[in-house]
Formats: sequence, structure tokens, C-alpha cells
Amino acid sequence: MDPERLQALLEAVREDRTSIADALQKLRELPFRTLEFAHVDTHRHLRTGFPEVVFGERKTPEQIADILAELAKGGSTALATRVSPEAAALVTARLPAARYLPVPRALVVGPMPAPDRGRGLIAIVSAGTADIPVAEEAALTAELAGNRVHRLFDVGVAGLHRLLAHRAEIEKAEVIVVVAGMEGALPSVVAGLLARPVIAVPTSVGYGANLGGFAALLSMLNSCAAGIAVVNIDNGFGAGQMAAMLNRKRDL
Amino acid sequence: MDPERLQALLEAVREDRTSIADALQKLRELPFRTLEFAHVDTHRHLRTGFPEVVFGERKTPEQIADILAELAKGGSTALATRVSPEAAALVTARLPAARYLPVPRALVVGPMPAPDRGRGLIAIVSAGTADIPVAEEAALTAELAGNRVHRLFDVGVAGLHRLLAHRAEIEKAEVIVVVAGMEGALPSVVAGLLARPVIAVPTSVGYGANLGGFAALLSMLNSCAAGIAVVNIDNGFGAGQMAAMLNRKRDL
Amino acid sequence: MDPERLQALLEAVREDRTSIADALQKLRELPFRTLEFAHVDTHRHLRTGFPEVVFGERKTPEQIADILAELAKGGSTALATRVSPEAAALVTARLPAARYLPVPRALVVGPMPAPDRGRGLIAIVSAGTADIPVAEEAALTAELAGNRVHRLFDVGVAGLHRLLAHRAEIEKAEVIVVVAGMEGALPSVVAGLLARPVIAVPTSVGYGANLGGFAALLSMLNSCAAGIAVVNIDNGFGAGQMAAMLNRKRDL
Amino acid sequence: MDPERLQALLEAVREDRTSIADALQKLRELPFRTLEFAHVDTHRHLRTGFPEVVFGERKTPEQIADILAELAKGGSTALATRVSPEAAALVTARLPAARYLPVPRALVVGPMPAPDRGRGLIAIVSAGTADIPVAEEAALTAELAGNRVHRLFDVGVAGLHRLLAHRAEIEKAEVIVVVAGMEGALPSVVAGLLARPVIAVPTSVGYGANLGGFAALLSMLNSCAAGIAVVNIDNGFGAGQMAAMLNRKRDL
Amino acid sequence: MDPERLQALLEAVREDRTSIADALQKLRELPFRTLEFAHVDTHRHLRTGFPEVVFGERKTPEQIADILAELAKGGSTALATRVSPEAAALVTARLPAARYLPVPRALVVGPMPAPDRGRGLIAIVSAGTADIPVAEEAALTAELAGNRVHRLFDVGVAGLHRLLAHRAEIEKAEVIVVVAGMEGALPSVVAGLLARPVIAVPTSVGYGANLGGFAALLSMLNSCAAGIAVVNIDNGFGAGQMAAMLNRKRDL
Amino acid sequence: MDPERLQALLEAVREDRTSIADALQKLRELPFRTLEFAHVDTHRHLRTGFPEVVFGERKTPEQIADILAELAKGGSTALATRVSPEAAALVTARLPAARYLPVPRALVVGPMPAPDRGRGLIAIVSAGTADIPVAEEAALTAELAGNRVHRLFDVGVAGLHRLLAHRAEIEKAEVIVVVAGMEGALPSVVAGLLARPVIAVPTSVGYGANLGGFAALLSMLNSCAAGIAVVNIDNGFGAGQMAAMLNRKRDL
Amino acid sequence: MDPERLQALLEAVREDRTSIADALQKLRELPFRTLEFAHVDTHRHLRTGFPEVVFGERKTPEQIADILAELAKGGSTALATRVSPEAAALVTARLPAARYLPVPRALVVGPMPAPDRGRGLIAIVSAGTADIPVAEEAALTAELAGNRVHRLFDVGVAGLHRLLAHRAEIEKAEVIVVVAGMEGALPSVVAGLLARPVIAVPTSVGYGANLGGFAALLSMLNSCAAGIAVVNIDNGFGAGQMAAMLNRKRDL
Amino acid sequence: MDPERLQALLEAVREDRTSIADALQKLRELPFRTLEFAHVDTHRHLRTGFPEVVFGERKTPEQIADILAELAKGGSTALATRVSPEAAALVTARLPAARYLPVPRALVVGPMPAPDRGRGLIAIVSAGTADIPVAEEAALTAELAGNRVHRLFDVGVAGLHRLLAHRAEIEKAEVIVVVAGMEGALPSVVAGLLARPVIAVPTSVGYGANLGGFAALLSMLNSCAAGIAVVNIDNGFGAGQMAAMLNRKRDL
Repeated sequence: MDPERLQALLEAVREDRTSIADALQKLRELPFRTLEFAHVDTHRHLRTGFPEVVFGERKTPEQIADILAELAKGGSTALATRVSPEAAALVTARLPAARYLPVPRALVVGPMPAPDRGRGLIAIVSAGTADIPVAEEAALTAELAGNRVHRLFDVGVAGLHRLLAHRAEIEKAEVIVVVAGMEGALPSVVAGLLARPVIAVPTSVGYGANLGGFAALLSMLNSCAAGIAVVNIDNGFGAGQMAAMLNRKRDL
Repeated sequence: MDPERLQALLEAVREDRTSIADALQKLRELPFRTLEFAHVDTHRHLRTGFPEVVFGERKTPEQIADILAELAKGGSTALATRVSPEAAALVTARLPAARYLPVPRALVVGPMPAPDRGRGLIAIVSAGTADIPVAEEAALTAELAGNRVHRLFDVGVAGLHRLLAHRAEIEKAEVIVVVAGMEGALPSVVAGLLARPVIAVPTSVGYGANLGGFAALLSMLNSCAAGIAVVNIDNGFGAGQMAAMLNRKRDL
Repeated sequence: MDPERLQALLEAVREDRTSIADALQKLRELPFRTLEFAHVDTHRHLRTGFPEVVFGERKTPEQIADILAELAKGGSTALATRVSPEAAALVTARLPAARYLPVPRALVVGPMPAPDRGRGLIAIVSAGTADIPVAEEAALTAELAGNRVHRLFDVGVAGLHRLLAHRAEIEKAEVIVVVAGMEGALPSVVAGLLARPVIAVPTSVGYGANLGGFAALLSMLNSCAAGIAVVNIDNGFGAGQMAAMLNRKRDL
Repeated sequence: MDPERLQALLEAVREDRTSIADALQKLRELPFRTLEFAHVDTHRHLRTGFPEVVFGERKTPEQIADILAELAKGGSTALATRVSPEAAALVTARLPAARYLPVPRALVVGPMPAPDRGRGLIAIVSAGTADIPVAEEAALTAELAGNRVHRLFDVGVAGLHRLLAHRAEIEKAEVIVVVAGMEGALPSVVAGLLARPVIAVPTSVGYGANLGGFAALLSMLNSCAAGIAVVNIDNGFGAGQMAAMLNRKRDL
Repeated sequence: MDPERLQALLEAVREDRTSIADALQKLRELPFRTLEFAHVDTHRHLRTGFPEVVFGERKTPEQIADILAELAKGGSTALATRVSPEAAALVTARLPAARYLPVPRALVVGPMPAPDRGRGLIAIVSAGTADIPVAEEAALTAELAGNRVHRLFDVGVAGLHRLLAHRAEIEKAEVIVVVAGMEGALPSVVAGLLARPVIAVPTSVGYGANLGGFAALLSMLNSCAAGIAVVNIDNGFGAGQMAAMLNRKRDL
Repeated sequence: MDPERLQALLEAVREDRTSIADALQKLRELPFRTLEFAHVDTHRHLRTGFPEVVFGERKTPEQIADILAELAKGGSTALATRVSPEAAALVTARLPAARYLPVPRALVVGPMPAPDRGRGLIAIVSAGTADIPVAEEAALTAELAGNRVHRLFDVGVAGLHRLLAHRAEIEKAEVIVVVAGMEGALPSVVAGLLARPVIAVPTSVGYGANLGGFAALLSMLNSCAAGIAVVNIDNGFGAGQMAAMLNRKRDL
Repeated sequence: MDPERLQALLEAVREDRTSIADALQKLRELPFRTLEFAHVDTHRHLRTGFPEVVFGERKTPEQIADILAELAKGGSTALATRVSPEAAALVTARLPAARYLPVPRALVVGPMPAPDRGRGLIAIVSAGTADIPVAEEAALTAELAGNRVHRLFDVGVAGLHRLLAHRAEIEKAEVIVVVAGMEGALPSVVAGLLARPVIAVPTSVGYGANLGGFAALLSMLNSCAAGIAVVNIDNGFGAGQMAAMLNRKRDL
Repeated sequence: MDPERLQALLEAVREDRTSIADALQKLRELPFRTLEFAHVDTHRHLRTGFPEVVFGERKTPEQIADILAELAKGGSTALATRVSPEAAALVTARLPAARYLPVPRALVVGPMPAPDRGRGLIAIVSAGTADIPVAEEAALTAELAGNRVHRLFDVGVAGLHRLLAHRAEIEKAEVIVVVAGMEGALPSVVAGLLARPVIAVPTSVGYGANLGGFAALLSMLNSCAAGIAVVNIDNGFGAGQMAAMLNRKRDL
């Protein structure tokens, strides 16, 4: 429709039904979206390499189901994060096409894309067992954006040897997502040992003076190691998205 | 230049040197500012009812003088806030047209506008002597935007009768700016007594648990009185600007 | 009664039953409210343009019902905010005249006033779906105070074109209430694009380092755009009240 | 027993069964409590004018019942604070002598003492309806310590005239306890208007940036009015205890 | 003057030059201060038992000197707190009647009142050497309000025996002011050992995680001992004032 | 297996099937763990004097049961902390060998070791009744590491004499664990009175401005007494572990 | 030396002067660095694509000069950040090869490398004039690591059109570094408009409730836009380093 | 003197000049210190293994010199911490016996004790160059208490191999003090690698979101490694003191 309006205006110019001065004025007054933002939005999927996602908190199961159904129209893949098992049961009752993944607490509709959009591998490393849900949310997000993911979980201070045992493979990754709660030291250690950029994800795992994840967040922001940037506490989705954008082939 | 490019494009359409499809494509790619933001900026002065202002902190006296000189070209009025007396002396040596107002710590270049742009009066009420610089910054800002200002300073808990003695005049105001440090209770009291909206300005005046003004800020945000909104700590300029926008005649 | 006491005293003076010195002394000792605060309170409704409201949190359904019934006597309109659906069901069972609005989580008793008390329009813009309850609380509050309200919801970074598409109408508003959680950037963007004053409402929507809405609150307080003032986190009611006071015709 | 040991030692000295050097050594090694702390504890009730109290949070109903029963032995009066209605039902089933007061959420065992221990009156003033439980905890505490209490509740910014209407009586108080949440301005206003010392009690009533009562706490600590000291958030018990100590006749 | 206006009005009533209805209306419109607040202020000295004080921070030496001179007119005693030695030298050059007390960093003009206004003694106890300036500010404030003060300084954990050695005298005090920085434990210990109410003053003495005195402040607010209330960090003046009000004879 | 690989490499060197240069290169490339970290982990139990422990929060009863079963293989003792009674019932149904200790909320599998690994005694002192669960977690942890533990609970300000009555025994301890919530003063007092090092454990016991235990934590970190170090809020396990390491005989 | 020791050991094995069991044991005991970390460090430059850098704060000019001289030996390029002009003058007097760049407050020794190590461009966008020093530190860091940098400064809310005018070029960048203080909204806006990953750098520019840059930091962490990760406040160096690692050609 | 008083009392008892009842009463009233605290204080040196120390901040050079002179009487060793070079010059001019150590910013009077009071070695490990002053304060403190100290500085993430190269020696230590700023990860890494207890010292080294050392402090408190306890930010003295007490031979 908006392109139609534009086209009609240009035709009127060509056919001299509209003066150039009038056309200029009309162009200035055209709704903003017509010219610039509109195709941005229609191309949002291409821009970021990732379809719309539904943030499941503070939404009813009905809302989640309806938005997922809308997003998944025409065979697209859609994702809802932070969905409790109870809500997921209600959503899948209403939208049987939705699959629930209990560890990352996510609902997916539509096919998993082929892992062919990334330049290389995305490694996802996590510290403790309790950090796995956040790490899996990051992994799922990256996979849904068409990436190949290498998971290495339960690599705490006592498990550092496991990281080193898999060092060769992980150093092949374009970017390493490191997920840790408690004191949040793992990203610093990984960045100190491996020559790859690190997206650090603090988690709220811990207690007492962990301040709901702020202790880990501050630790990561203040890291003295080179090549670390940080996302929000428990934000596995954001880390997966950032990793996908960093890994994305430029010609896509 | 940009309108020229647009005009050239339209002429090419009219003269059939460019297909409509090509023209549509070119319109999509035109720099954003051409169509929308550009004239916004040239009309910024009219939009907000206030000229550009120089935030003086973290700038050298040379930078302040040069920006003020640029802004004041063609007889406009320009303002620099948060200028220390030492910096002001260096600025005025370089730009003799600048006048320094030591209480609000501001430099002004150009004439003071007539107080004819507001629907009504702006009242500025402050609690303690130490809050006066912030209150005067608000007053100066409002006056530079063409408003009539009524000042009522030193109205603390012990001076509440002064507020009430001037009640009739202050209730005539379109909006009341209330400036207070310490426990920041004055805006709540003013809003409880007078039937006018209040822009509350917390100041960093105080010590100990005042947290650099956060105690007053929190007090104002949590006020149980009706009709209070808050600006940043010590932000007399922002309060004056908000008051000027609220008081501004719609036909300007 | 109190006017009676005053009148009796003055009659005693006229009839010389009381010396002037005694009368002076008695006047000093009269209860405060007799002279000053009393009519303030009886006129509270007129002063602020808004009837009493019941803050529903920490109150039992019985208390809410009884206070609403009292406030709504004589055909007045009364509002209770922050009422859960469960509590609302109990209140409406006890007070059938109360209507529950589930989105803003509010109970209303009495007629909706005509939208004839404002100088102009109040625009209410919100960022995400989860911010809508707070935005609707603001809208309802403004409408109950006799204002015409224009709602524009779901205007986040990706939906900025919608704001611009409705730009002409929104710029007609006397004041714009902007509701946003997460990073709280929307009020800055709105104030940068549109030449109208903004009342910014941070919400607690978000997670991790959003600090229950403090991230958005700080973002709004530190905005570098002109013409923003802020209310408490999730305080849709306060924003609606402030907007109503700012929009109120002076002859009311 | 301890005095016995001391007496035996002194007798041994007198009868030359113990050398003075040995006695000196033994005196150094005597358990601390023998000489100093012991009688402090047995006289704790007299020292502070208040019997032991049970802090009910984090205790099982069984624990509360048993401790109350122990404390109330011999006809003493005992108090348990912060007891939920559910816990109270279980306690009173086990200890029928306990009476539950639902507003201050307290259990009392034993007789209410005569109000004859204070030099004067204790006034307790509170701001909003939601502050009443804390205010009643303060009142009950003061009454259990043998004081006469004057309650004045619901005195917010809009109800200041009520404070002034009762001014004469309240100024008779030895000390005024002022309870307020939200912005916590009431203690400043009371201390500014009345010539009596104020014990300020911030409450956690409010939302958003009230920080669980820290906004009110900071407001009270930073008050510019004379004669205010502050207790912990929601600590009605502590305020009542402090008021009782301040009001206590010296010859008791 | 205001009493004159009132008197004239009453005379007009008596002489029937004014109707009672008109007089009633005029009384309603009289400036607030005429009737109520005015004599409050003229009697402020009597109300609080303490003359006006100048908060010296953020004031120029000239301002301090002028305000002190004004306050001390007619032989009254006036106090300026938080005056640096450099500022004090400039003030005393301008106002030779001012005496500087370097430890509490205070300037005094006028005679020290006789210690005859208190019911009893005020004890002032402090923890470390670095807390003495705050303790002396409290002591000076109490003495200027006509109280007898007992100082006991340098009573830390290692000096507890000194407190106990002076126990008898300190327990005679009406109220004990306890000043401490670092971990702020001293008020809890004092309140646990002695049967007197404690006004606790946290100081900013310390480093690292002392948060400018917040560690001590929080410690004092959370004390599990009975009979403690707290003032702002480093607020010796406020503690002295509160103690003076608590100790004040009721017939003054 | 890894030692096998090493041995094979060395045999190849000896038998000249591999050049020394190649062997050097292979040694560089051997997985890290082979040489260094591996035996660290197999000897973890010996290194820290404590077996693996399961942090029970955020784990399902099934996970807890399975990990405990795995850890306890071969007769070892294993511990799970922070297990709710509900979860414990499910765990013990699945793993009957597990014993639940409700006060420290811990599950233990395997025999309690003999108290023969410590140089001396570990004393555990706590302030209030509500601190006991944390204190018992510390005690259990130390006992599971083979230490003799002396418990002294309910030693608050009012119970200081109990500490002193047991002074002789407690001063025999190698290290004293002191557990306290509220204002957290007890470690300072203990360290001031007794000549032994103190591991301080703040608890979240309290309310209002206790900030979930931060008030006690800050108090302990800022202690002016000699010989205190602090662990995380409510971290009885960590304190017990630290005490066990400090008390551990060097020849183990 | 270490390789020598290894070689000697292997020779001893080959020549049967050492048993394989002994050799295994010796290998286990070899200093860690011999085998693993050593060459990591000698290759640190290659690993991270960046030479050692000197953090200039808290170092004397002598220390800075000496470390720079050491690092720059053999023609390498070395960088010192956060060097004040005064310190720089002293350093360059001692080390004439050092060049001072006053805007990023950095000292550089050695040649600027060719911009041939990156896959593409690094764009650096900043909000206000006062953010330029941090932005220039990021730019210099990226350039010293061999990258081509596109600077676009002074792009605030009012200058958004400039960003859009350069949109085509900036979207070519591999990664965009966005530097902003105050409310920190720019990274969200950039990430919302452009389809490239963003490294966000909050600055301490602002005042009042900006909390030394925390307001901007929180805003960036909570961004609802896709593809943002954050570094420490004012950490231009870290952002430049991260961008260089992300842009680095894999075959280097 | 006090023992004299006691002895005189006992002699009076023996010689029947005082009744036993009177003696009992007198014993109760004896100053506290006589019996209990007195010898504690005179033996303070022995109790804690460390002489009095002067905290140099907020003290004048004269005060420092005088207190040091007093403490050092009779050949004792005394220490003043946190002394600036300027203050030290003034102190040593007044007290020539004082030696200034510029790195730990400490003044020492008297001989360094022989390192014969500890059971073993104290290792002190620090992360960055800027942490050395705090580390040296810890080392000096431990040495002044008669301990042998092993320093290992500049062991950051990039220097971990140095720690491992000295592993054998450091694992011999009774306790390891680990000093680190920035993200504070070093204590976790040390405790994870070495089987010795760690006293962690956060420093204020860093910038931006390091919060004056709180980031490192929180990181250390939340460490998931076994055997860490923490002291205040920058508190090298406290860590040295704690280490000395932990290392102290029991028979001293």
C-alpha cells in the first residue's frame, strides 16, 4: 500500500498531474514509515538473523499461544522464552505445533533451521549445574538462528581441566559464550587461557551477597582479561542472539 | 542540497530519464535526514521553545567560549550552565559579550527575551539557602525561554508560613518548581497545600546518609501527594526547561 | 460548628461580652483547621481535579469495599487501584456498583465524567506489551479526571515508525505520558522527536539488572532530551494525575 | 550459688585456709558472670522496664508457645511480635492463655500492667491506613511497659489539620512516635510544628522506588527539623520500647 | 503589625463598622502566619530549647559571619557548625565576638548558658579517637542548650572496661549519646550493659566497605539491644539537639 | 588412560621409535589435565580435607539423590546442603541411605568420620535462635571433615555472660566460627574478648534495613577488632569448610 | 631452559639412565609453565592480536616510562592508557620515543601498524562531546591492533540524522562500538536501526543520579534491542580490544 | 595498683577488719577492669600476638608521632598504617626513631622481631602492580608479628604460571593471603589450585563499575572455591593480623 502511494505520486509527476513543488511537499509529509522504517521492519528477520521472539514472563498462556501462532504463520520458526512448565502445558494444548524444551524453559514453533548461516562455531561454556538453563537458552537461540553450537557445561574452578581438554575445539569457535553465577570468575579465566572473544552471561545462581547475580555481573565487567563483553543477568537469549550476529556470514 | 537532490530526482521522473521503479528504489535509499529529521533540527529552537545550551562541565573555557559564540551568532541568546568562576573569567576574557551570573553559575550571551511566551507564571520555591544556586539555574532557564518567574526561597519546615503568606500569588502559577535537598519533603508539602502541579528538583545539599541527593530524590518519587514529577538531582536547568514547555503558549 | 464558634465569638465582641484582648487570645487558640485547612479539605476535589482514590494494596477486600462506598456517596466517582482479580471479586460481591477493569487492575464506582475539563488531549505512549497495565492505569486516571486520552501502545525501538505515523495527533497533546520498562529509553526518544513535554513512567518490567525498575528510572532521570519529568516506578496513577493537573483548564 | 562461692572464698581467706595470693588468683579466674553480668541479667526486667519479648518470625508456633509459656511463668506478662494469624491460631491452641491482637500481629500472655510507670504520655502518630499495624505494635509495646498512650492515626499531608486539631494534647506527650511509609515526610512536619522530641519509624509501605522502606528511612535520617531520631524500618516494637525508656520514671 | 490588623478588625466588629459575615470572611483570608505560625516562629527558641544554628558547609565566611551576627543580636547565643579552620579565621576577622572551637569545628557567639535546663545529665560516649570531633559537636550542642554533659571518649572494644569503670555515673544520665564509626557496634554494647536510652550517631570513620558511614548506620538501626534510636551519619549536632530535647525540664 | 599415553610415549622414546624433538612437541600438546590438573582432581578429597558437596538449591530431588548416590559410592561420606524438608522426603524415598538433619537442612550419606583430623577444637558460637540453622550447617560441615566441634548458641548482647562462662574452653579452640544476623556485632565482641581468630558468618536474620544480611556483613567487614575474616551471608557450609582447613593437621 | 630440562629428561629416558616410572613422576612435578602456559605467554601477542598495555592510573611517570620502554623493545608498539597531561610530560621527558595523544589521554611508543588485520571496518559512534575521550581510546586501541576505524561522534538524540546519513557506511562495519553517558540510550537506538552487533560503552558523563555511569550501564544491560553486549564504564580500551578480537582475521 | 586494692581488701578480710558481707559488696562494686579486663589489656600484646597499631588516617602528624612514641616505650615495636609521605616526613622529623616504608605507607618504631612465632610460612600473593601497597601492608604486619613471609606479586590471569611455578613453596604456607582488585578472581583461582586456606583481600584498584572495591569484595564472598574468608577492602593490615593469628604457635 505505501509503495502504491509512492508509485502513484511518481506517476502523477511523470504525467505532469502534480507539480514538482507539490510532490516535494507531499514527500516531506509522507508518514515516516513509508520511506524508511517500513522496509526495515519487513526485513527485520534478515537484518538481525533472527525472527521475533516472545518474552514469556508476564504474559498469559493464551497471549503466548496467539503470538506464537501469528509469528509462525507461513512456516517461519518462532520462539517463546521464560515459559514455566505449567504455562507451557496450556500453550501446547492450544497450539499443538509448539514444542516445549524444559531445560531452557522455551517453546518453539516451526522447523529448526539448518546450521549454515554462521562463519564458524559458537561455543557455549557454563560453570555450574544450576547455570545450565541459561546456557541452554543461549544455545537454543543460536541454533534457531542457524548456527552450529558446541556445548561445554560444568566447567567450574574444579573442572578447569575439562575446558583445557576441549581447548582445541573451543578455540576454533568464532565466539565463546561463558555462563556463570556465584563469583562469576569463569569468563576471566576462559578469556585468559583462550585466544577468542567472550560474551559473558552472569546468572542469578548463588545466595547471600550474590545480589541476584550482581556479584557475577560486576566481576565480569571488571575483568582484567582481554576480550570480554557482558549481557544482562540470566540473559541467555541475548547472549545467543549477540553470538549469532557476530558469527553471521556477511553475505546473508 | 538535499531538497535539490529530491527535486532532481522528480525532474528525472517527469522527463522520463528515470523509471518509476528506479525512483522508488532511490527514494528508499535517500539519507534519512533529507526527508524527516533535517527540518526538525533547523526548527529545534521553535520546537522546544529553548535555544541550544552548553553543559559546561568537562569542557575547557576555550570550548565553552567557542560554542557560545557559534550559538549566539545572528543575535540569538545562548546559555552555558555549570561554569565555575575560574572558567567564567577565562571565557569572558575570550568572549566579552558573555555575562556571568555567579549564583546559578551560568554564562549568558545575547539579550534576555521578553517574558511573553508563557500562558502564565512559573513559581520557583526552594527550601534552604544552599539550594538557591539550583533554584536560580531553574529561574534563569525559564526566563531565557521567555517566561515570567516568581521566586520564593528559604521556605523550609520552619518557614512554611512564608509559603502560605505568598500562597495567593503562587497558586496563580501554571506550574511550581520546588527545589529541596536534605530530606526533600518540601515538594510533598507544597503539593499538599496548593492546587498546582509541582516539578520537584532534589539537590545534593546535605551530608551523611543523603547519598549525594538520592535521599531527597527518593522522597520526592515516593510522595503521597498528588501532582508531582521529578527531575535529576541538582538539575535546575532541566526543571526550568520542563516548566517552560508546560507553560508555553500553544500558538508559539 | 467551627464557623459557628467563630460567629459566636464575633457576636460576643460586638455585644461587648468579650474584650478585644480576650478575643485575640481566643483566635490564637482556635483549632488550626477552623481557619485555614478546613475549607482546603472540603475543596480538595476542586483543588486537584481528582476525587479521593483508594490504594488497594495491603487492604482487605472489605476495607476496599467500605471505603469505596463511602467515597462514592452522593453520586461521586471513586477509584481503587492495584486490586487483584481475586480481591475484586470479593469487593464487587459486597459492592455491586463497583466495576472491575482487569487490565489496569482498578475498581471504579460511579459515572465516568465527561471529557471536558482539559485544555487539550493527553497522549499515553507505552513501550512493550507488559507495560500496558501501567499505561492503562494512567489512562483511566486521566479519564476519571475528565480528560480526553489518546493511547498509543507497543511503541518500542522496533515500533518507532508507529509513533511517527501518529506524530501529528500526538503532537497535539498538551502532555505526553510515556511508559517504559527494560532500559527505559522511550521517553528520551519521544522527547527528542516531538515538541511536547513528557511525563515519564518507569515500569518494573524486565529482569536481571533491571533492579525492579530502577534501571529504567535512572535512564529517564538522566535523559539528555529536553522536557522530561519522572514519577515513581509503575506509578501509572501518579502520572495520570499529574497529566490531568497539567491539562486542567484554569477556570475550573 | 555464685555469691556462695565468693563467700566461701572470703571465709577461707579469713580463716587462713587460703593464702591471699591464691585468693587473688582465684578471683581473677572466677567466671565473669559471677561478679558483674549475672545480676544484670536477673534484673534485666527492671533495667529496661520491659520483659523479654519473642521475635515471632522464623520460629515455629511450637517454639513461640513454649517460650511464651516459659517467660510468663509466675504471672509475668510476655509478648510475641510478628506472628501471622495462622501461627497465632496454632499457638493459642497450645497455650490458651495467649491472646492474639490481629492488627499489631502480636500475642500477649499475662495481665496488661497499670499505666503508672511513665512520667507522662506517649503519643503515637501515623500517616496512612497501611502504617497502622506498625503504629499499633509501638502502642502495644509502650502499654505493656506501663505507659499511657495517645493514638492519632491517618495523619498524612491531606490530614495535617487533624494533627493540629489535637495539637494541645499531643504536645503534652513526653515523646512522640511518628510512623510513616512512602516519602516519610510526616516526622519532619511533626517535629517542625510541635515542640516535642520525635522517634521516627519508617515503614515498608509503598512501591516502586520506595526500596522496601529505605526511601522513608533516608528521608527521616536527613530531616532538617530538630529533635528526630530513627529506628529500623517497620520496627514498631523498637520505637515503643525506646519511647517507654525515655518516658520511664527515674525512681523505678 | 499582624496583631494590629486583627485588633482593628475586632474593633470594627465591636463598633459595627464591619458586619460579622464580612469579618468571618476576612478572618478566613488573613495570611496564615497571622494566626498560627507567626508566634510559633517568634517562640521557636522556647519551643525547641535551642537557638537557630548556621550549617556552615556550602556557605562563604562572609555569609556565616553575617548570619551569626544577626542571630546573636541582643545577647543571644548562636552556633555555626562544620566550619573549617580556614573559614573560621575569616569569620573571626570579620566578627571578633565569634570563638572557634577547632575539635568540633564550630563557631560560637555569645555566652555559654548555665547548665540548668535539663532534668539530668547527658552522657556522650565515643569509640575511637577519630570519632571525637562528632562527639564534641554533640557535647557542645547539648551544653549550648543548657545541659550538663559527661564525656567518655575512646571506648572501643578494647576499652570496654573504661565504660564499666564509669558505669555508675553514666547510668545516672537521662540519655546517652553513643558515637561510633567502623562497624558501629558500640551503641549495641552500651545499650546491652546500661539501663538507659541511647541516641546512636554513626560516623564516616573507616574505609573500604564502610560506605562512608553506612556500615555503622545499618549496624545501629539493626541493633538487637533495647532502647536505641539513630541520627544521620556524622550528625553530632542532631544528636546533641535530640538529647537536649529529651532532657529538657517540662516547665521550661 | 592418560598415564598410559604418557608411558607409551616414554617407551617410544626409550625404544627410539620417537625422536626427542617429536616427543617434546607431543608433550606440549598433551591435554592439560594429563599432566597437571588430573591428579589434582583425583586428590581433591585429600587437598581440601572435604569430599564433594551438593548445593541443594535449584536442584530437583531426583538430581540430589542421584548425585549423592554417585558421590557416596565406595563408602565415602557425602553431603547435600540447603535441602527443604519436602525435597528431603523425596530424596530419602529414592535413596534410603540418606539421613536428613532438619535444623541444618542437610542430607548426609555415609558414616560420620572420626574427629581425628584437626589439630584442635573448632568452636561455633551463634547469636540468636534464628541463627542456629546456619550455625548447625557450619558445625555439621566441620564434623564431616573430621573435626571436634564445641557449640555455644544463643549468645547475644544479653547472653554475653554465657560466652564468658565458657571462655576457658572456647579459648582452647584453634578457630572460632561466629554466626550472627541483625547488627552483626557478636564477632567483634568475641574477637575483642578472646585471643583466637574468628571466622564471621553474617546471617539474613532480621528485617527492615538489614538488607538480607548485608547490614551484618558490613558490620563484620568493618570490625575494629583484630583477627576476623568473613564468609558469605548464611554460608555456614563455607565457614565450616574454612575452619576445617585451618584446623587440619599438616601431615594429612 | 625449561625445554632444555624436558629434553634432558627425554634423553635420560632414551639412554636408560632414568626409568619410565621416574620420568613419569618427574613430568608430573615439572613446573606447570614448562609445558603449557609458557608458550601461551610468549605468544600472547598473537593470541589476542594486541600487545601488552600499561594501565596508567596509580603508576608514577617513572614506572610508566620504564614499562613502556621495556614493552617497546625490539620495535614493538606499546600503549599506556589513562595518562594525565602532567604525567605524560614527565614520561616523554624520560622516554622521548613516546607520543602523547591528549584526547584519549594515551601514550604510544612504536609505529602504528598497517590496518590489515581485520576482516572489515570497526565503527565507533559516540553520543556527546564529553564522551569523545572514551571513544578515542577505543578507536586508538582498535587502530593499534591493526584495524581500520570509522569514527562518528556527537550523535545524540538530536543528532540521530547524522547516524542515518552515514548509515550505509556504518552498516558495513563488522562491529559497532557505541559510547554514551547520561541515560545511555544510544546503543539501543543504534542496535534498533542498524543490523550490526554493538559493543556498548557506558561513560561516567552526567551528574546527579547518573551514579558515576551506572545509569548508562544499567540502561545498556537492559536494552530490549537485539545484539548488544556491554563493557565497563569508561572502558574505551576494553571495547577497542573486544572489537579488534571480533574483527580479527582467523588466519592471523 | 588494682591488684594492690584487691590485696588490701583480702588482708582486711583476713585480719577481720572487714566483714565478709562488706567484702562481698565491695567486690561487686570494684571497677570491672580490676578483675577481668585489666589483665586482658595488659596482656593484649600476648593475646593477639601483635602490639597496638596506629591507624594513621584522620590523625595529625603530631598525634601519630606522640602515640608511636608512647607505644614504643620500653623497646616495643609499634606500627602506624596509612601514613602519606608528607605526614611521614613530619612524623620522622619529630620522632627520628620512626622508619617510613613508602610502599606499604607505614611507619615503624622499634626492632623487627625474629620470625619465630609462627608454626609455618605465610604466603602473600597479589594480582596487579597496583595491588602491591596493600600486599606489602599485609606482609609487614605479619612480619612485625614475628612471622616468615613469602611474597609472590603480579600473579594475574596472564601470570598464573608464576603461581604454579612457585606452587610447591606456597603450598607449604600455613595460610595464603591473596590480594586482588578489578574482578577479584585470583583468590578463587588460588583456592581452586592449592590445598591451603586463603585470606582474600579485595582492593579498590580498578575503575567504572568496580565500586571502590565492592566488585572484588562481592566476587570473593561469592567464591565457589573451598576455604576462602574475606577482609575489608584495602585492609592489608587486617589480613596480615588474621594470618598472624592463624599461624601463631599455640604455646606462645
